[in-house]
Amino acid sequence: MLSERMRHLTPYTAGEQPRDRSYIKLNTNENPYPPTGKVARFLKRIDPDMLRLYPDPNMTRLRQVIAEREGLAPENVFAGNGSDEVLSFCFYAFFDSVRFPQLTYSFYPVYCDFYGISKTTVPMKPDLGIDLEAMVSRERQDPVIVANPNSPTGMYLEKAEIEKFLHRYNQESIVIVDEAYIDFGGETCAGLINTHKNLVVVRTLSKSHSLAGARLGYALAGKPLIDALFVVKDSFNSYPVDTLAQEIGVRALTDCAPNRRNIEKIIATREWTAGKLAEMGWSVKPSRSNFLFCSMPGRDGFFVYSELKKRGILVRYFDKDRLRDSVRISIGTRKQMQSLLTAVQVIAREPT
Amino acid sequence: MLSERMRHLTPYTAGEQPRDRSYIKLNTNENPYPPTGKVARFLKRIDPDMLRLYPDPNMTRLRQVIAEREGLAPENVFAGNGSDEVLSFCFYAFFDSVRFPQLTYSFYPVYCDFYGISKTTVPMKPDLGIDLEAMVSRERQDPVIVANPNSPTGMYLEKAEIEKFLHRYNQESIVIVDEAYIDFGGETCAGLINTHKNLVVVRTLSKSHSLAGARLGYALAGKPLIDALFVVKDSFNSYPVDTLAQEIGVRALTDCAPNRRNIEKIIATREWTAGKLAEMGWSVKPSRSNFLFCSMPGRDGFFVYSELKKRGILVRYFDKDRLRDSVRISIGTRKQMQSLLTAVQVIAREPT
Repeated sequence: MLSERMRHLTPYTAGEQPRDRSYIKLNTNENPYPPTGKVARFLKRIDPDMLRLYPDPNMTRLRQVIAEREGLAPENVFAGNGSDEVLSFCFYAFFDSVRFPQLTYSFYPVYCDFYGISKTTVPMKPDLGIDLEAMVSRERQDPVIVANPNSPTGMYLEKAEIEKFLHRYNQESIVIVDEAYIDFGGETCAGLINTHKNLVVVRTLSKSHSLAGARLGYALAGKPLIDALFVVKDSFNSYPVDTLAQEIGVRALTDCAPNRRNIEKIIATREWTAGKLAEMGWSVKPSRSNFLFCSMPGRDGFFVYSELKKRGILVRYFDKDRLRDSVRISIGTRKQMQSLLTAVQVIAREPT
Repeated sequence: MLSERMRHLTPYTAGEQPRDRSYIKLNTNENPYPPTGKVARFLKRIDPDMLRLYPDPNMTRLRQVIAEREGLAPENVFAGNGSDEVLSFCFYAFFDSVRFPQLTYSFYPVYCDFYGISKTTVPMKPDLGIDLEAMVSRERQDPVIVANPNSPTGMYLEKAEIEKFLHRYNQESIVIVDEAYIDFGGETCAGLINTHKNLVVVRTLSKSHSLAGARLGYALAGKPLIDALFVVKDSFNSYPVDTLAQEIGVRALTDCAPNRRNIEKIIATREWTAGKLAEMGWSVKPSRSNFLFCSMPGRDGFFVYSELKKRGILVRYFDKDRLRDSVRISIGTRKQMQSLLTAVQVIAREPT
């Protein structure tokens, strides 16, 4: 009874989201700090009557606030139900075929199968960095998507490298830079959309603004590309960003200083944790994100994942070539990371 | 720079959603009453920290509550970001081709174009009712979708008629009954999913539960079909129903008596308004929904729409064959409908 297209689907597997809240949850890159004061104050005075009417389908105020934050115009902004939905709409709108790094956000190949997009994966550098040189396809100049910082490694491409790539690349082929983690120490490419009409920058409020539960993401690009994303939205669901999410987004994005402080704490905790793990002999990838991709000496990733889970700590393990020796650990509070380090010392004493 | 598939899109045009709140808004079938007490009380005590984590991707509690309400099991329930998203996922999962009535929810042909589904529209009965007899395609027995009550007419098919149709139809071809308006006086087909493995019933909380702004819809069907909808969701966006929407839905669906009272008021106001319009010589379709499809003697729908809009009242006009002589008027409060009737009397005196 299912459609033909169902034969081609292999759904994305998200990290575990146990309803049991006793875990120290370091597996899906959530922010350990609650949303900031403006969001909290808004939540205290919601008028229930606002839910009676449909949301603003143009997300006018939210897009204004995003535009102001990024130094762009509202016509350069599209918002969606998490950056997952924004990415999904981008794949629909921009890709008949696409190239992306072999090791990256594992939703990209899922979108390809969902829409029947042909995909080419590009091998990583020996250190698991993105090989931008190899991303260039001289013959076909397919559209491209890169995550920067990349997941699950946390590794970062300098803005200058991406700019050089954009200059070399076919100006008619879309380049998406997925900046889900850019706020944790990277430099955004958002400003480049004015000079590169083929560039789309995708962001999320899930991590940097402690709003994974509110589902808010956005895309920045030239007006013709944003218009195309609206056509896609209006062919799928006129109002994917609900009224409360729009209002919450406006508050979060205008509460800059407290968010900045949370991010700085996370960066400091990341560097502290990375240092401690390195002291214990772990190999840790240089990260500009809110997670660390790292491996324990003499142990594989599944062992670390399983032993930590037994001890009430969830981290993420990827059962994939070149990733099996490692785990991805989200950065929690200093106290949570201390618990992680203690557990790590305990499991290091387990017999091999 | 756009994908090939963008050539085939004609997006859905939603009813106007002006930010100017001074209009009496009777154009998109919103509920005139605020969400009920349980929702209001929940909104007063939201813990901001709950937004930090991703929502429950399985929507466990929400689906339990829906299942209890419908007398089904949670495995028979899928929930999404409004019934628009639920319908979109259904079209993806179940249709290579589909038949639907010529005059119905105008998002159906949009979904078809979005996913490349071939569509056949079936002519209406002379009174604009759905011709179930003509929906049967002896040769191909394509999947079918009908809205019951239908939009924009509000006309209703008895459950017994749909049951008879299901018995006659190919048990391998999906039949979707879109019950967005069923709570306003119709009898649901939800119970038939146990005996008809090809039946999918789609519902929304937008209208009956005053939650258009929260974006909550659901599908009821046998487990294999629900599983397919989860595969589609997990290939598109793992968490389309955000945390607050899930929590709000749980409260709304367990606040039965107050919701029932709102619905009864709307039904009473509908009957009162229909009677008054008929007294003024209007032709009014029999409605089991929260709107009236009706025409003013000697005037076309665009005239009525435009003249009412000038007077601060928004109704919906459809620029389509057989619909142009009418407007669709959502049922507001008694006071709003009184304003409508007064305006209608005024515009009746305008020169033709």
